[in-house]
Amino acid sequence: MPSLLIIAHGSRRAASNDEVRALADAVRAQPGQIYDQVEAVFLELAEPGIPEGLSALAAQGATEIVAFPYFLAAGTHVAQDIPDAIAEFSAAHPGVKVRLTQHLGASAMLPGAILGMAG
Amino acid sequence: MPSLLIIAHGSRRAASNDEVRALADAVRAQPGQIYDQVEAVFLELAEPGIPEGLSALAAQGATEIVAFPYFLAAGTHVAQDIPDAIAEFSAAHPGVKVRLTQHLGASAMLPGAILGMAG
Repeated sequence: MPSLLIIAHGSRRAASNDEVRALADAVRAQPGQIYDQVEAVFLELAEPGIPEGLSALAAQGATEIVAFPYFLAAGTHVAQDIPDAIAEFSAAHPGVKVRLTQHLGASAMLPGAILGMAG
Repeated sequence: MPSLLIIAHGSRRAASNDEVRALADAVRAQPGQIYDQVEAVFLELAEPGIPEGLSALAAQGATEIVAFPYFLAAGTHVAQDIPDAIAEFSAAHPGVKVRLTQHLGASAMLPGAILGMAG
């Protein structure tokens, strides 16, 4: 089964990072979810970082990782920094397949989710 | 019927603001959605701002507005700046009811939506 890596920006505000960790806990606890492991990592300003998170999953035996950018906008972080970090990991770990998804803000499921949240 | 105001942070990067406007378009186009109008506004760095967006909806006859903070973390913007802007509007427009929802990052629907996005 694949593992899910939720990649957040990271904040100097500890409570914001904790919100992301709580989100990973909530995803992990969703009934019927298909992931072996669900972990949160941070691009910057908080730990663990993307390389540490990927390496930890690989060390625990993961061979298939879905990497989800928890970002609203497709800026440099989404377009370049996150793909670069994953490419670097993949070059060093050819036995681990990492699939990068769209960022949150571009998800086709978001409009319906927003209506559910707001309604 | 209520109107929906999607409140984003706003960015110096025009494409990020356009992503938010496209999201509002996508929400507006969702089948069965219940809002008379769906508009995007920005806390800072982009136009229209929150007061302009609320006033425009009121000028078009809205009497019930759902305000949705399109933010991942509950920082000062979510906890203080957005409520303050809404309170100021409400004081000046007692005939318009504005209901502020949870921010995106705190929504109970988000974990399931993430699994749908990532899966």
